[in-house]
Formats: sequence, C-alpha cells, structure tokens
Amino acid sequence: MARPLTLYYAPFSRASRGLWMLEELDEPYALRLIDIRKGEQKRPEFLAINPAGKVPALRDGDRTVAESAAICAYLADRFPDAKLAPAADAPERAAYLTWLFYAASNIEPAVMARANKWDVSAYQASWGGYESVIDNIAGAVRRGPYLLGPQFTAADVILGSMVRFGVSAKLIPNRPEFTAYIAHLEARPALQRAIKIEAEYVAQLKT
Amino acid sequence: MARPLTLYYAPFSRASRGLWMLEELDEPYALRLIDIRKGEQKRPEFLAINPAGKVPALRDGDRTVAESAAICAYLADRFPDAKLAPAADAPERAAYLTWLFYAASNIEPAVMARANKWDVSAYQASWGGYESVIDNIAGAVRRGPYLLGPQFTAADVILGSMVRFGVSAKLIPNRPEFTAYIAHLEARPALQRAIKIEAEYVAQLKT
Repeated sequence: MARPLTLYYAPFSRASRGLWMLEELDEPYALRLIDIRKGEQKRPEFLAINPAGKVPALRDGDRTVAESAAICAYLADRFPDAKLAPAADAPERAAYLTWLFYAASNIEPAVMARANKWDVSAYQASWGGYESVIDNIAGAVRRGPYLLGPQFTAADVILGSMVRFGVSAKLIPNRPEFTAYIAHLEARPALQRAIKIEAEYVAQLKT
Repeated sequence: MARPLTLYYAPFSRASRGLWMLEELDEPYALRLIDIRKGEQKRPEFLAINPAGKVPALRDGDRTVAESAAICAYLADRFPDAKLAPAADAPERAAYLTWLFYAASNIEPAVMARANKWDVSAYQASWGGYESVIDNIAGAVRRGPYLLGPQFTAADVILGSMVRFGVSAKLIPNRPEFTAYIAHLEARPALQRAIKIEAEYVAQLKT
C-alpha cells in the first residue's frame, strides 16, 4: 500500500518547506523526486497532480494540496496532535493565519522586486515597500522564540524558510532579530533532519 | 458594546474582499473607514492594529487578522454554519486551501509583473509566468460555477475578487471561463450588497 502522504519534491526549491513541515510531524511519508532541471514539473503526469506545474505538491490519499503555505496549513490542521497550528477556536488562530498569508503573499514579491530593481509603487502593490516588509517581519519575530511566542507553528515553517533563505542569499538584511530567529529554528531537530535529507538528494542528483 | 467584528476598510482597495466576505455571513459587523488617500493606514493608531500599515484588517473582540485572504480564511472557519469553507476533515479542504493560497501568492505578482513589464524569470519566481497563471485559473473555474464546483467558499471571494478586478482593469484577458465565473459571482446577493455599500462610501468620500 502506498503511504498516505507523498510529497512531490525537488531539493533547493520551495518544496524544502514541505519537507521540513513533514519532519515536524510524526507521520510516515514518501518523497517523490521531481527533477525540475529536466522540466519534470511541466510533464503531463505531474500536471495531472498539480496543474500549476510547480513543486511542492502533496498527495494525501486521493487529495492533492499545492502551494507550500497551503501544504503547511493543511498538514497542521490534519494532524492536530502535532500542535503545529492553534485550534480553529483558539485566540492565537488570528495571528497564525495573518502570518501564514502575509509570508505567502508579501515577502517573496517584495524581495524579488528589490533584487531585480523593479520599480514598484508601494501604493499599488499589496506587499508595499521592501523596507516596510522587512521591518514588519523583524517586529514579528523580535519577541521570539517564534512568531506566536512559545508555540512553534506551520507559519514559522513558511516565514522561517523565507527568512533563512533570504538572509543566506543576502536578499534580507542580517538583523539581530533574524539571526536569533534563525538560530531558534535551526535548533529544531526536524529542520536539522530536513537539511540532512536535502543534502542527500543534492548529492544523489549530482552523481 | 462594540460589535465583535470590525473591518478596517477603504473603498476600491483590497478591503473590498473583506466587505464581500462579511456580507456572505449572517453576523453583525461594523466598518471603520481608513482614508488611505490621507495615509491614515500609516498612522500610529492604525499601526497598533496592523503593523503592516495596510487595509483590510479585522478585529474580532481582542483578536486581529490582517491580509485579505487570512481574513476570509479566518471568518470561514470561525462561522462554520455559513458553510464558506469545507470542514477541516472534508476531502475538499485540500483544494480549498490550495486555491486560497494560490490566489493570495501568485495572481497579484504575476499580473503586476506583466502590467509593469518586469523581467521575471519563470524559474526564479514562485508564481512563474503570467500565461501559466492565467491558464491555471481558467482551468480551475472552467467546471464552475465555483472553484470547488457547487460549493461557494472563501476561496471564491479572494480569487473571484482578483479575477473581477483583473478583467475590468484589462490586466486579465476576458476569456469565456472568466466571464461565466464573474457572472456567477455577481449573481450573489452578498456581492451585490457589498458593491452597493462600496459605492456609498465612494460617494461619501467625494463630498
């Protein structure tokens, strides 16, 4: 029998977020490598799973979830015992959803606009200016250790992955708030395992 | 006593999505006008509510939700009797979350990149190329009447608002799939009420 959870995955892509999230759970899962250098994400057999032609995608039995933030939100609610999301009626749910969606829809375009020197009107774009996005994230993680304080959630997987990548790629400034936040995230065994698994896939692809 | 739900709102902004969502519910709410032409969204009293300095934001008692898609996701789960989201354990939850996050993080940057002629690498940007985003949305609404078929959800409020605005602003092509989808949405009394309320606010601001 196929395992119920299968992540369609490519190393060094946004699929790393799904891998980390799965490692935070205590559920069996399989990784299915999609070689994006060969364009496998645009082949008909993968488009039947995710018509958007992107990794990650997650299969859970006959259900499919795409978009890394949706995968994290889905898994967090699907496996409540892991406590990776405040319950639907918990007061913290408001901040949890705010940060999950904020990360998904603001950080990447703001950072890419800056890196590519696009002329963005802060009034026109929903993400506003790069500086205000960076200030807003810094404010959110200042208290720590996580976005919601003591409780680590799926929103940290998404926002944390973006901050980790952004700082290492020098797309996000290395402010003390981010250094501390990244250190808290990297202390998590699940992220350490995900990093190790990713390295093994990278080595495998190189051979 | 203050009503429990208060939407911080500006007409002709992304706050229109929150207004439509509230009209889909059968709950009392108040609108609090934030005059974004006067920069009220950047004033300290509003930054205390939403540090990102953007409308919409929603207050529910002492909880605050920001980001239009987060507001819709929050309200749909908060008021399950309105059936604006599949339940957490329903099979349709996977597609619901996929579309909610896809809309929130792909459509706007893809459309803005096209409108502003930004040179986006489809490989680099999570949203990929404009054409593939448009094709993907068209495929999603082709079956209709809504994203999930017969069930209207909060994902239709978000994606539907973007498609309506995009087509009317000629940022999204007027394909038959979109025309049919918009007609289904505009047949909803809640959207008709939201459009009327918005028009009244616009008139009020002009005087």
